[in-house]
Amino acid sequence: MQQKPIILVTNDDGVSAPGILHLSNIAKQYGDVYVIAPDKPQSGMGHAITINSSIRIQKTNYHTGIVEEYSCTGTPVDCVKMAIHKILPNKPNLILSGINHGSNSSINVIYSGTMSAAIEGSLEGASSVGFSLCDYDINADFSATTPFIEKIISSTLTEPLPKGVCLNVNFPKLKADEINGLKVCRQAKAGWVEDFEERKDPHGRSYYWLTGKFVNFEPESKDTDEWALQNGYVSVVPTMHDLTAHQVIPHLQNIL
Amino acid sequence: MQQKPIILVTNDDGVSAPGILHLSNIAKQYGDVYVIAPDKPQSGMGHAITINSSIRIQKTNYHTGIVEEYSCTGTPVDCVKMAIHKILPNKPNLILSGINHGSNSSINVIYSGTMSAAIEGSLEGASSVGFSLCDYDINADFSATTPFIEKIISSTLTEPLPKGVCLNVNFPKLKADEINGLKVCRQAKAGWVEDFEERKDPHGRSYYWLTGKFVNFEPESKDTDEWALQNGYVSVVPTMHDLTAHQVIPHLQNIL
Repeated sequence: MQQKPIILVTNDDGVSAPGILHLSNIAKQYGDVYVIAPDKPQSGMGHAITINSSIRIQKTNYHTGIVEEYSCTGTPVDCVKMAIHKILPNKPNLILSGINHGSNSSINVIYSGTMSAAIEGSLEGASSVGFSLCDYDINADFSATTPFIEKIISSTLTEPLPKGVCLNVNFPKLKADEINGLKVCRQAKAGWVEDFEERKDPHGRSYYWLTGKFVNFEPESKDTDEWALQNGYVSVVPTMHDLTAHQVIPHLQNIL
Repeated sequence: MQQKPIILVTNDDGVSAPGILHLSNIAKQYGDVYVIAPDKPQSGMGHAITINSSIRIQKTNYHTGIVEEYSCTGTPVDCVKMAIHKILPNKPNLILSGINHGSNSSINVIYSGTMSAAIEGSLEGASSVGFSLCDYDINADFSATTPFIEKIISSTLTEPLPKGVCLNVNFPKLKADEINGLKVCRQAKAGWVEDFEERKDPHGRSYYWLTGKFVNFEPESKDTDEWALQNGYVSVVPTMHDLTAHQVIPHLQNIL
């Protein structure tokens, strides 16, 4: 009998978040699902790992029809490492991260715990996909994402992603019949115009909250994830961990 | 009278670490230096930002001959945002991060708090450089790094780095007369063969420590940072925040 694929499911919103419950529920149709996810929200953790303290895991029981699930005191990247090295019976055939409550398109990818888990998965040599819905509401409706997630799982199980590349998939906040389809695109040049809101504690000392406004620096470019999302598409960006700006090397060799 | 350049200095080892003291001491020859750095070690924080809690800053007094210094309860990325939006009198001409106690070459760049500060700086439109010494010792000897840091500061103040590109500079653990010079190169394909060491707490429950062994997957390639460091060079990798695997887009457009 052929073995079923091993699918690891993780996220950055915590093991019991609605988004990961939706994702594991789809994934279990395609293989043996293991969930290892943070025990608390880890949004904005980027590619953080835990090296100055130890990590604990705890069996949990939020998901149905899967093999095993654990909450982990570490970051999303820690969850992937822990799963691969301590929990899974074999290397996973697929790593799925999300569904994140909120966008991870364009520049958000570098701050994203969801995507760092997917990037870590690709470093470990597994096909990995991060999913995010452009809706921060804890009660967001994930139903429209289902057929696209099914298509991507099925496709990546049939043909693994190129080595070192994972997918950053973002869903617009739309109903199923309003979505125009999948669009493979590139990370838009965008940024946050930020500020810190200063407040005073009861003892008169200042503290600050990070605030900001998202700006797409190239709203006219039609090959970006931001354009896709604005125009009713599910954006799919192939994402890698080589940060080298190769085109700049000759210039620097001249001046340094 | 011409205004002096504004130089922001930060790191991930904390505001009073020997590496950042060495760096601010060099930087102050070139402009008005502001130090804003974490109040505690933040190694392995990747591109984490603080969004679920507030941030505080505190004036400190570890550096000499600079304009102002603060410790910050946030991550290295938070420090850069805070400095630019709340502390500096104008946009910085240069952002320097480090000198990190330990290597940030090859794949380490994605886990690195030092480099995330530099990447954030480049996102904010400032020439930014992260420096790391391949020596984890808190009493490491930083003296051999001085002439190279001087050259890089001088060069980047004269000619700002291309938009969206920062530098990842790593120093080998060598004496000044053993270093062969600067080498502009690319991020090596490398990884960590990891494991978790399991221990039992006094109550018999398991906890885990991340451990691992670094492996260069392409030791023969002479254009990588790992090769440069192994062969006595200071490695300089231009580094960016566009994670798109552009070459994979056509393939994915075919299969999705």
